[in-house]
Amino acid sequence: MLRIMMNKNNRAATHGHSWRQCSKPLLDLLSSRPDDPIISSSNSGCYPNHLAENGEQRRSLQTCVDCVGGYRETLRTSMDRCSRQAFVMQYRNFVSAAAKVKRNPSFSALMPDDIAYFKGILGEKNVIQDEDRLDFANTDWMHKYKGSSKLLLLPRTTEEVSQILRYCNSRRLAVVPQGGNTGLVGGSVPVFDEVIINMGSMNKVVAFDKVSGILVCEAGCILENLISFLDNQGFIMPLDLGAKGSCQIGGTVSTNAGGLRLVRYGSLHGNILGLEAVLANGDVLDMLGTLRKDNTGYDLKHLFIGSEGSLGVVTKVSILTPPKLSSVNLAFLACEDYLSCQKLLLEAKRKLGEILSAFEFLDSQAMDLALNQLDGVRNPLPSLEHNFYVLIETTGSDESYDKEKLEAFLFCSMESGLISDGVLAQDIYQASSFWRIREGIPEALMRAGPLYKYDLSIPVEKLYDLAEDMRARLGQSAKVVAYGHLGDGNLHLNISAPKYNDMILAQIEPFVYEWTSKHRGSISAEHGLGLMKANEIFYSKAQEVVQVMASIKKLLDPNGILNPYKVLPHSLSSSS
Amino acid sequence: MLRIMMNKNNRAATHGHSWRQCSKPLLDLLSSRPDDPIISSSNSGCYPNHLAENGEQRRSLQTCVDCVGGYRETLRTSMDRCSRQAFVMQYRNFVSAAAKVKRNPSFSALMPDDIAYFKGILGEKNVIQDEDRLDFANTDWMHKYKGSSKLLLLPRTTEEVSQILRYCNSRRLAVVPQGGNTGLVGGSVPVFDEVIINMGSMNKVVAFDKVSGILVCEAGCILENLISFLDNQGFIMPLDLGAKGSCQIGGTVSTNAGGLRLVRYGSLHGNILGLEAVLANGDVLDMLGTLRKDNTGYDLKHLFIGSEGSLGVVTKVSILTPPKLSSVNLAFLACEDYLSCQKLLLEAKRKLGEILSAFEFLDSQAMDLALNQLDGVRNPLPSLEHNFYVLIETTGSDESYDKEKLEAFLFCSMESGLISDGVLAQDIYQASSFWRIREGIPEALMRAGPLYKYDLSIPVEKLYDLAEDMRARLGQSAKVVAYGHLGDGNLHLNISAPKYNDMILAQIEPFVYEWTSKHRGSISAEHGLGLMKANEIFYSKAQEVVQVMASIKKLLDPNGILNPYKVLPHSLSSSS
Repeated sequence: MLRIMMNKNNRAATHGHSWRQCSKPLLDLLSSRPDDPIISSSNSGCYPNHLAENGEQRRSLQTCVDCVGGYRETLRTSMDRCSRQAFVMQYRNFVSAAAKVKRNPSFSALMPDDIAYFKGILGEKNVIQDEDRLDFANTDWMHKYKGSSKLLLLPRTTEEVSQILRYCNSRRLAVVPQGGNTGLVGGSVPVFDEVIINMGSMNKVVAFDKVSGILVCEAGCILENLISFLDNQGFIMPLDLGAKGSCQIGGTVSTNAGGLRLVRYGSLHGNILGLEAVLANGDVLDMLGTLRKDNTGYDLKHLFIGSEGSLGVVTKVSILTPPKLSSVNLAFLACEDYLSCQKLLLEAKRKLGEILSAFEFLDSQAMDLALNQLDGVRNPLPSLEHNFYVLIETTGSDESYDKEKLEAFLFCSMESGLISDGVLAQDIYQASSFWRIREGIPEALMRAGPLYKYDLSIPVEKLYDLAEDMRARLGQSAKVVAYGHLGDGNLHLNISAPKYNDMILAQIEPFVYEWTSKHRGSISAEHGLGLMKANEIFYSKAQEVVQVMASIKKLLDPNGILNPYKVLPHSLSSSS
Repeated sequence: MLRIMMNKNNRAATHGHSWRQCSKPLLDLLSSRPDDPIISSSNSGCYPNHLAENGEQRRSLQTCVDCVGGYRETLRTSMDRCSRQAFVMQYRNFVSAAAKVKRNPSFSALMPDDIAYFKGILGEKNVIQDEDRLDFANTDWMHKYKGSSKLLLLPRTTEEVSQILRYCNSRRLAVVPQGGNTGLVGGSVPVFDEVIINMGSMNKVVAFDKVSGILVCEAGCILENLISFLDNQGFIMPLDLGAKGSCQIGGTVSTNAGGLRLVRYGSLHGNILGLEAVLANGDVLDMLGTLRKDNTGYDLKHLFIGSEGSLGVVTKVSILTPPKLSSVNLAFLACEDYLSCQKLLLEAKRKLGEILSAFEFLDSQAMDLALNQLDGVRNPLPSLEHNFYVLIETTGSDESYDKEKLEAFLFCSMESGLISDGVLAQDIYQASSFWRIREGIPEALMRAGPLYKYDLSIPVEKLYDLAEDMRARLGQSAKVVAYGHLGDGNLHLNISAPKYNDMILAQIEPFVYEWTSKHRGSISAEHGLGLMKANEIFYSKAQEVVQVMASIKKLLDPNGILNPYKVLPHSLSSSS
């Protein structure tokens, strides 16, 4: 690695290489069925990616993505080994959340005639009643939520989705649309006996325009497969998640997934050009435009981006993909205070501007945890202890120009005192070791013991105040660890405690939500509301807005069959 | 200017300067009232910007933006002088469109008690009944649509907007929300006697965060004033329109304005972080988030982006603004065929990637027209006639790097035969002269005589086929001119005829809409539907989608008082 020197005369020349690994070609797998075993191209060590936080799992365990048959079994073994304690806590949370929900008595129970109908339209093998397969589909990624569905359907076409929903609506059978089931808020599994509609069989690329970079594909395409397909075409997906080996594009759209490229390419509301979605009554909404500009009336596709499958089932997606750029650089830097981190962000936006692709931060508590809990992790800046660390990644089209630009920026930042030390990765191995620190924090936290996790958006200026206020509030009773996507104003606030304790929880909640609300933050930056936070919505949304949400839900899904008990507060959704 | 040389050894060194003029500071004018005369900082010649196409008027006439008193009078004088013939044609179009609409009999007529009520809440001077002032507010930018409203209201706060709407809803008084009244589809003026709510008095910046670049402001802020405000802060607006001297941010959001920076910064759906909007019943929806990530339920703000004031009145806006970058370069290039233009776009996206900020094209017919009709315009590439011309602009943070990068790209493109000739502007004057050609085309077209104008989005690959098909169809009867924002897939197709002729119109329509629809294009790329194209919506939107639009309109505005007769087809809107 290149050490950034304090003395101008010692400014080091760089002779590094682009270090970002390309995903291996998976084009031929795009048309594979979900019961074919597919090995992801993710490249990290042994930590199971489903334990890590969404967007925190960049280089994670090889994942078997047979989403219906045996997927996630390897992960679960590992999970059971290393984090049983955490699950006990999570289960307690779950019990407490589930206790508030009662099955909507207006929903019908599944009858043999229903099964026969579905077999008639989907064929025997796409109507799943096998207990083991249902157990997987009923259980969420974190083992936190578990439903009791007796039926999993695997439609292969939009028309089949339409037929399923039309029937379920007429019979008042509740349904859960399911993609890769990688959600973290209980949104993708049944709460009770809802019919699961898994989209994994709709996994074809429909079209790709190499001039405009516009990709049209079915909802069940796995994100990593799309990344690989585009890599061969010289393009990238505008979003990248740790869960990419399992998550499906329809699910990422339905949850408005954020991830690692948001600071550069913006949210899915900007990148999704069109959608096809099926309403509860079976009506197919063809909004599958492939245009950057289309001002012909209300842009209804946005209703389906981030509504977690509660307004309709996304069946196809049109997405603008950026061209792949060849030059990637990464710096690992130290700042002495949070104000310097903020100023550094401002300078990076201005001086790196068009090549800035990530701006992540961690505090010293997060660094200590990574160093103490993770095997093989070393501090790239070992000479002194620092209060904050920042990772700055650039992505551009010219290796030498970009590197010089980053070096000049870093040198200026050192001279002005914004950064107190720093290193620039010289190859992919060094870069991976830097990312391992940042991305290993969720794993380190899980290893450290019982954990209270919060995914918050807060205006950047105030973001770290919450960590300090929480630290002052909790004193010695628990350790407060803060890190996250500073470039997006997304804080991952974690409280690591010696044991699960209702007293500590009472100190944290509702304080953390109230604090976030007071500063006009969001109680869910990237994970959604799902079942977990449906009742907390008022911390982030005004009463009148939630009322309109409920009216739109009622309009589009009058029987409330689509993903019930999620997103909307139960007081409002039960009336719909 | 720097001529791009064919011979590698003769590759010219560049010593140019950044040429993009900064707007002069107007910070102090941000809090000015709309009846103060404000002179815009736009810097072109004598062509009135309200004659040019939206997004086509970059350097336009100095505009007096006293939007209530005497604004646009200078423009109109100029307009009357140079384009009377065109207005005759437009008026005929208007008559034909208006003939299809009947006043909704469920709307009340204005009564003296109503006036008294409004004076009570707004004060005497903000309730306008003066005929001259009403005449301006009743008439659209192009003199194409004219309403007969007897009342213009000037609210100063969200609460006042709420009171107005609550009252109008209870009285069934129809209203037209109005910003700068720069729309081109009859969306911003009354059709009959609707009450006009002009937002120009709500023109304050509420907050600006220099770390995140997030601006919060009232809906009536004039775009150019915001640009100037941000310029002082080291930021830019993510959109830039020719109408910036008059258009208001609330109007640009309500019409989802596109403009010149879309290819770089994307659409408003990606850049608008939050909105405050008032529903027809007076309910205020506070969705004024300032967060890049917020996944807490349906993102309802998107309903108000591009719905042309028919679902609610936007009162405040939160917008993500990019940092200002110092280096701007412009190349004027020739291509021999449309396929080369396409390939050049692909290469530019890949090789210029992060610094590409505009990719515009014009065909030889457009160039001939500019050369023949515009004073002082010269062909920068006079040695040979070429079939297509492309302007490529880059914007980045490092002058020398960016220029070298552009030069290298241009050299490669010459070597590979994608471009046959080209020049690189060396200073702002040369750059302005290049832009003058591209931006002068609407003016040249107006000068050439009767004109049929279409603003279409078409997949890039097929975009120019329409011009060729139209040319084959029309033969010698009219001249087909094509240009536009190729980087966005936005074609401005213009048919210049010797005289207005129903036979020619019948050759063009509905063919142009059918062709666009067949290729999954949009019949309105950036202008919206307004009154003009409300009944043409089915060319771009599926029946089921329009039906959901109508349901949402009915849900949010059950009496249909908000901007009636616009956006939705009259068959559906009259039933709501």
